[in-house]
Amino acid sequence: MASVLLARQVTLNLQQNTRLLVPCVRYVSQAAAKKNVDFEYDGPLMKTEVPGPRSKELIKQLSKIQNSEAVHFFCNYEESRGNYLVDVDGNRMLDLYSQISSIPIGYNHPALIKVLQQPQNLSSFVNRPALGILPPENFTEKLEDSLLSIGPKGLRQVITMSCGSCSNENAFKLIFMWYRNKERGPTGVTKEELDSCMINQLPGCPDYSILSFMGGFHGRTMGCLATTHSKAIHKLDVPSFDWPIAPFPRLKYPLEQFVKENQDEEARCLEEVEDLIVKYRKKKKTVAGIVVEPIQSEGGDNHASDDFFRKLRDIARKHGCAFLVDEVQTGGGSTGKFWAHEHWGMDDPADVVTFSKKMITGGFFHKEELRPDAPYRIFNTWLGDPSKNLLLAEVLNVIKREDLLSNTVQAGKALHDGLLDFQARYPHLVSRARGRGTFCSFDAPSDAIRNQIILQARNKGIVLGGCGDKSIRFRPTLVFKEHHAHLFLNIFNDILADFK
Amino acid sequence: MASVLLARQVTLNLQQNTRLLVPCVRYVSQAAAKKNVDFEYDGPLMKTEVPGPRSKELIKQLSKIQNSEAVHFFCNYEESRGNYLVDVDGNRMLDLYSQISSIPIGYNHPALIKVLQQPQNLSSFVNRPALGILPPENFTEKLEDSLLSIGPKGLRQVITMSCGSCSNENAFKLIFMWYRNKERGPTGVTKEELDSCMINQLPGCPDYSILSFMGGFHGRTMGCLATTHSKAIHKLDVPSFDWPIAPFPRLKYPLEQFVKENQDEEARCLEEVEDLIVKYRKKKKTVAGIVVEPIQSEGGDNHASDDFFRKLRDIARKHGCAFLVDEVQTGGGSTGKFWAHEHWGMDDPADVVTFSKKMITGGFFHKEELRPDAPYRIFNTWLGDPSKNLLLAEVLNVIKREDLLSNTVQAGKALHDGLLDFQARYPHLVSRARGRGTFCSFDAPSDAIRNQIILQARNKGIVLGGCGDKSIRFRPTLVFKEHHAHLFLNIFNDILADFK
Repeated sequence: MASVLLARQVTLNLQQNTRLLVPCVRYVSQAAAKKNVDFEYDGPLMKTEVPGPRSKELIKQLSKIQNSEAVHFFCNYEESRGNYLVDVDGNRMLDLYSQISSIPIGYNHPALIKVLQQPQNLSSFVNRPALGILPPENFTEKLEDSLLSIGPKGLRQVITMSCGSCSNENAFKLIFMWYRNKERGPTGVTKEELDSCMINQLPGCPDYSILSFMGGFHGRTMGCLATTHSKAIHKLDVPSFDWPIAPFPRLKYPLEQFVKENQDEEARCLEEVEDLIVKYRKKKKTVAGIVVEPIQSEGGDNHASDDFFRKLRDIARKHGCAFLVDEVQTGGGSTGKFWAHEHWGMDDPADVVTFSKKMITGGFFHKEELRPDAPYRIFNTWLGDPSKNLLLAEVLNVIKREDLLSNTVQAGKALHDGLLDFQARYPHLVSRARGRGTFCSFDAPSDAIRNQIILQARNKGIVLGGCGDKSIRFRPTLVFKEHHAHLFLNIFNDILADFK
Repeated sequence: MASVLLARQVTLNLQQNTRLLVPCVRYVSQAAAKKNVDFEYDGPLMKTEVPGPRSKELIKQLSKIQNSEAVHFFCNYEESRGNYLVDVDGNRMLDLYSQISSIPIGYNHPALIKVLQQPQNLSSFVNRPALGILPPENFTEKLEDSLLSIGPKGLRQVITMSCGSCSNENAFKLIFMWYRNKERGPTGVTKEELDSCMINQLPGCPDYSILSFMGGFHGRTMGCLATTHSKAIHKLDVPSFDWPIAPFPRLKYPLEQFVKENQDEEARCLEEVEDLIVKYRKKKKTVAGIVVEPIQSEGGDNHASDDFFRKLRDIARKHGCAFLVDEVQTGGGSTGKFWAHEHWGMDDPADVVTFSKKMITGGFFHKEELRPDAPYRIFNTWLGDPSKNLLLAEVLNVIKREDLLSNTVQAGKALHDGLLDFQARYPHLVSRARGRGTFCSFDAPSDAIRNQIILQARNKGIVLGGCGDKSIRFRPTLVFKEHHAHLFLNIFNDILADFK
């Protein structure tokens, strides 16, 4: 298969397409894009506007069976490669969004193709077990080799789940159970608790809460959604819980010019966190846990200082709340460390860390102290998927072998420097350039202009994503290299220079 | 691979194992088990108690990284075949539980192995897209060929999800949105709604409810969990919603002896449903939808008559509530029809039908009327998984080609007849034998005896599952044939005859 792909790619590269739309290079950047000769394409190649005629036809077909208004275009995944996403009209785009940040090492990575081709792996793909009761022989070993080999320091317990929402939902439940057991002390569960929980009532279903932040996103199932506050479209019309919501710092950029203001802003938010914990305890809606993203992603790539998170962690500890770090989007290496919270430089940064997306499988790490005290408390039919663990193990091999975290630091620096440069040269279009590793973003002046920039970029062969009110977020894969950053910057410079 | 498997199987079959524990056949049943010569094993083969020494060692290892008390034993999925599950100690068991009812056509089905081996399918397994924004070219076509080819009558809209809980959570959200839009009428969403929903408050997050039944199970995430009332262990310590819970009929068996009593019992439950709808409307917790399983599975295989469901559907319609039929466990063919609710014989049985487990992918069908009115309302990163759709399409081909629904009716009759016979001969051990297709069950006299029967059966090479307080449920695959039923009945007869 890999050789077939390669042959096709060579043919494609040889076809001189007369409608090539790659813009001329005007940007004062590094040398022209280098080629990953053995695997990847050498640049975008555009044949039509996007979505093209074939995508439009397919969107129309899909809309007969479901709302398809969110579809950007239809893809040819067979022909996509590395950082390049190919659509059904033959357009080839440099992908800096990577399926909402969920593709770790690019499209059709040969190492993953090989996993599929090895006969000993077939069984994992065709026999999906109920992992909680009948795991496969290599289950623990695969978890040790993969997830636990990159687990956050101090969190040696791990449970897998099928997606990000399920990961956060079950992490919340873990926290509620732990908190209730703390309160209960050595006395066991009462009959009243067992009876009342069956009908959703106190004391069996306690009125605990999870404190979250305005602008946060933790998923869309009903528990998660009660802690999600990024966009109204996610929440409208869905019943919710009265849980405390703290303000998240709104930092001013450039950071070095607003040191005092930003410190005050963070102090204000932390004070509000403590006030809410006290207030909700009085309301008898005790805060059992605090959930936070290291960088609020869906909500607009909102950063806070490492100091903010250290202090937040201390507040959680002081008030006996579990501290849950949601690394569904930030985890997996794109900030330059495997977990974004590792940047905080703490010995004890979290009680629970959730993941999904680039990790291929959902799930969470947690401290021994939070371990479920009985079987079937944190449970469902599948509890993840061994075939995803298999793919993840190989992804981690590639990350280690190719030192992709260092790569991400390097590519991220080029990307971030480029954005800072744009900010200086196009201040009417680019502001608040920010980021860690390749996990970068900037603000456009408005929602409308942001969306227009994304569309123009797409037609020039660059896939970008929006977030928050008016931000553009960069979420390339871990095989996004410095030369891809320069290629992007060259093309994007033209877009900004010509933007009307 | 298939040939390698076959070669191994032949070798295994030729090995005369001296510790063979298959019991002698005393039961007055059909001829000895037939052999699926080309694919399957010819019977259980036990070498150790289960869990055996290797399983015990692996359970100990796993328990270092997670609570492993629910693990029955570790499996060798490579060697498992058809209806036979092989464990890591070399024990081969006839599996009538099929991974909590989630394996549709047996282990290592050659047709599924072939799907994995076809080069054109590799891309689906290594490139998991964000389906809601960037679907693959064949996405609609695969949905048409697979899910929509077996969709319930009248439900032509479909959305895929990653698991059963996410399916129900999103079905609830769909219902809430639809209900709110009905109430709202032609006036649009207000600013107050948009603002208040961001902080979990009215009117943006309305106080709607979903009516569920005592004994029901609809998943374990927080929305689902508020409608789950099967076991306290699922719900204890988790905050919940004050939503109405109706009694589910507790039928007396044999049904033909208790016609009047059961009619009265069903009428009582239906009356309570209407009362609760009225009561919760007054409490301003309007019932937007009713969720029900066609057979309450986790809660104890509780059945109600087709007439009960027809009347329940009418009540939902009368009060303007959506009617959600949860077919996560009952769907996929094991009742003898593809969807258990098809037995009710109605033109308009449901507004939404959820599925997962045997369907390989989670998701739900729904009426056009409930279609989301805007993009991103029912959405998440993955929205299912095209590689699972691919496997499902092949599963459906096999079901159609091999007429597995008819097979299930036939095997189910043999199984059910056998259970009725046991009930007559061992009334101190077997009561309330019931079922549709192979979706059968009976009650043991107590929790303790039920669990002991399951353990003894396992050591004789039969995997069974419990449900409810003291029931044993049968959830074989769709390739479970009449001869498997007789093989099981023969072995199980010995267990019951010797039971102490």
